[in-house]
Amino acid sequence: MPKLIDPIERKQSIAQATWNIILQQGIEGVSARNIAKEASLSLGALRYYFSSQEELMLYAEALVFERLTDKTNEIFQEDQPPLEKIIGVLLAFLPVNDESATEAEVRLIFKLHRRQSRMTYSEVQDVALQAVKNIISNLILLNLLKKGLDVSLETDRLIHLLDGMVLDAMVRPERYNKEQQRIMIVRHLNAICKEDVDC
Amino acid sequence: MPKLIDPIERKQSIAQATWNIILQQGIEGVSARNIAKEASLSLGALRYYFSSQEELMLYAEALVFERLTDKTNEIFQEDQPPLEKIIGVLLAFLPVNDESATEAEVRLIFKLHRRQSRMTYSEVQDVALQAVKNIISNLILLNLLKKGLDVSLETDRLIHLLDGMVLDAMVRPERYNKEQQRIMIVRHLNAICKEDVDC
Repeated sequence: MPKLIDPIERKQSIAQATWNIILQQGIEGVSARNIAKEASLSLGALRYYFSSQEELMLYAEALVFERLTDKTNEIFQEDQPPLEKIIGVLLAFLPVNDESATEAEVRLIFKLHRRQSRMTYSEVQDVALQAVKNIISNLILLNLLKKGLDVSLETDRLIHLLDGMVLDAMVRPERYNKEQQRIMIVRHLNAICKEDVDC
Repeated sequence: MPKLIDPIERKQSIAQATWNIILQQGIEGVSARNIAKEASLSLGALRYYFSSQEELMLYAEALVFERLTDKTNEIFQEDQPPLEKIIGVLLAFLPVNDESATEAEVRLIFKLHRRQSRMTYSEVQDVALQAVKNIISNLILLNLLKKGLDVSLETDRLIHLLDGMVLDAMVRPERYNKEQQRIMIVRHLNAICKEDVDC
């Protein structure tokens, strides 16, 4: 009797195969043939799960967002001091290890791809932007953010830092280990937090 | 008698057509056919100037770098206070108008593409990184940088901000006009400069 395959698991493994292709060859490497090969499926089986490449790409993008959302929710629930959680959430978007590198890089490539394929970009669906907004409002709530800062500007500055770090780590991976990325995040938080707060 | 065409001008206009294709369709849209059409040339004429797509892509990338280098050199020679020049150089890498948007976005896409096509990345050839290094060392020379900062970390932080701004302006163009981008740059410079310096 053949092994029963959970269709959700199968869809997720196809999405992960798509991430691999994107990381190895860029969006331009995405084709039904390449993905089927990477996922060890026939073209027919691939089409059974995703009727079009567009549908697959949307699913693969949504799965990155879901993984990152789950990860940040988990970190928020850990038994740690608030600032440690905030550092942890920011690190979740960075390539600190192989797994997070995949998610971080694929998120960035999808962000850019939305612009190039003229798909709608929605702030609400931008998981990194939402996390950064959340962090800045938490810093305010905890009374940690320096007085007089422009909140909207600081939100943007932090998301730029995060996106720029991912991009730079992609071209200069030898420069960034987890410790280096943590130092950068802590440096930035110290710069926007009150002077007596030390991350 | 047919008009004589300067081969360098022609190569540059082919490179600009390549930029347009990259901006409109991503790297995946780059093909001899698409570029020939965008440049209003026959495929034969295109092949006369560039024998391979690889050669064309390297030329198109080098031309962005050259344009940005020329622009930043010009700004450095202007008759302006040093801090104004520094702000100007940073703005030269941002999409403050249509022309600079093309150069800024194409630079970022090429940066990412180097990683994806496993081409060598060299810091010396990274025009934005060199400009940022130059700016940080100028701030030190002018005695403007806050004491005790980690110079290498601040160099990275500024390049991340720059890259992140370009990426974000690509997906949320309505959010960024020249004034907004200047405010962000000035905010960041104020944060790393001594307190009595006000950009």
